[in-house]
Amino acid sequence: MSELQQLPARQGRAVALKAGQSIRIVNTHGHQVVDTWAFNAHDLGEFLSMEHMRAAIDRISPKPGDKLVTNKRRPILSLEADSSPGVHDTFIAACDIYRYQGLGCKEYHENCADNLRAGMAGLGLTPSEVPSPLNLWMNIPIKTDGSIGWEEPVSKPGDYVVLKAEMDCIVAMSACPQDIVKINAGAPTDAHYEVLA
Amino acid sequence: MSELQQLPARQGRAVALKAGQSIRIVNTHGHQVVDTWAFNAHDLGEFLSMEHMRAAIDRISPKPGDKLVTNKRRPILSLEADSSPGVHDTFIAACDIYRYQGLGCKEYHENCADNLRAGMAGLGLTPSEVPSPLNLWMNIPIKTDGSIGWEEPVSKPGDYVVLKAEMDCIVAMSACPQDIVKINAGAPTDAHYEVLA
Repeated sequence: MSELQQLPARQGRAVALKAGQSIRIVNTHGHQVVDTWAFNAHDLGEFLSMEHMRAAIDRISPKPGDKLVTNKRRPILSLEADSSPGVHDTFIAACDIYRYQGLGCKEYHENCADNLRAGMAGLGLTPSEVPSPLNLWMNIPIKTDGSIGWEEPVSKPGDYVVLKAEMDCIVAMSACPQDIVKINAGAPTDAHYEVLA
Repeated sequence: MSELQQLPARQGRAVALKAGQSIRIVNTHGHQVVDTWAFNAHDLGEFLSMEHMRAAIDRISPKPGDKLVTNKRRPILSLEADSSPGVHDTFIAACDIYRYQGLGCKEYHENCADNLRAGMAGLGLTPSEVPSPLNLWMNIPIKTDGSIGWEEPVSKPGDYVVLKAEMDCIVAMSACPQDIVKINAGAPTDAHYEVLA
């Protein structure tokens, strides 16, 4: 597994990591949001939780060195490295069929919630639910009046993060297919990942 | 039910609302956080979801007039009135046994997650999970560097919010028992509520 794998545009993948292994997720073209989840490999009901993580790190978004915790407040991942400016979102739900219906889509639109399910299914697994994801490179600025923006990523081609498994876990990723709201600069693309020993 | 009910300090309660009814939740002593949840009365797997709500209202916290949506992006509550300065939290998980263990408690500590379960049990119900709550009056400022604070409420005694049911729902509330971190000014108290026709 120690070679670069494709995370195809608009699709999802999942990989099993042993505690101590790391995964490097690459924003190959620089403007792609990657929704990311992690589940305890031995209990899919325990998973990376944004609302517990924020309380644990006392920040709205993680920085290198931070331990990211589950809904049982146990570290499941740590953010080892981030070559990008560190603009990631922890506030916004994965896009889903309801989101695209609300945006006016009459036909099925690929979405991160279904991509999570498809990625996990590739390992023969079913997620316990669709937790709020760690949205790598998603740029949701908070303005002084409490309103939020939906902006393009500020990352550059080849930027990456390295996430280390703090327990045996399943990491799932979706190359976000959002092409209506401009969070992927209007053009969803491939990303890549590799498992590091 | 159209009279003021006690939400005892450190405890939880739940009430069933028909679509069109409202609940007024009162911060009787002015410095009490009330964790608040809402579940579709006919499908407890559908519930008020902070990460979907933020995307729907384009804000980090609701204002009067906002419709608050579920994990299926359907309105379940609307915020009809807020006599307080409007400082409420949508980022932080309900406190739970793991939180108090992490804060050094060796014995059981009352917590909002168990209060949700107890409040729902009072209606013979079991929540499908512990969703991230709408933390009324919880003051978690975001600083310019992305770090968060844990501050005392800025509300005054008697401040209230009115939430209108947009579907038949169960509203659960916990008078947050947090007495280590200073979010309740160190002194958890009663709050009150009343159902409005």
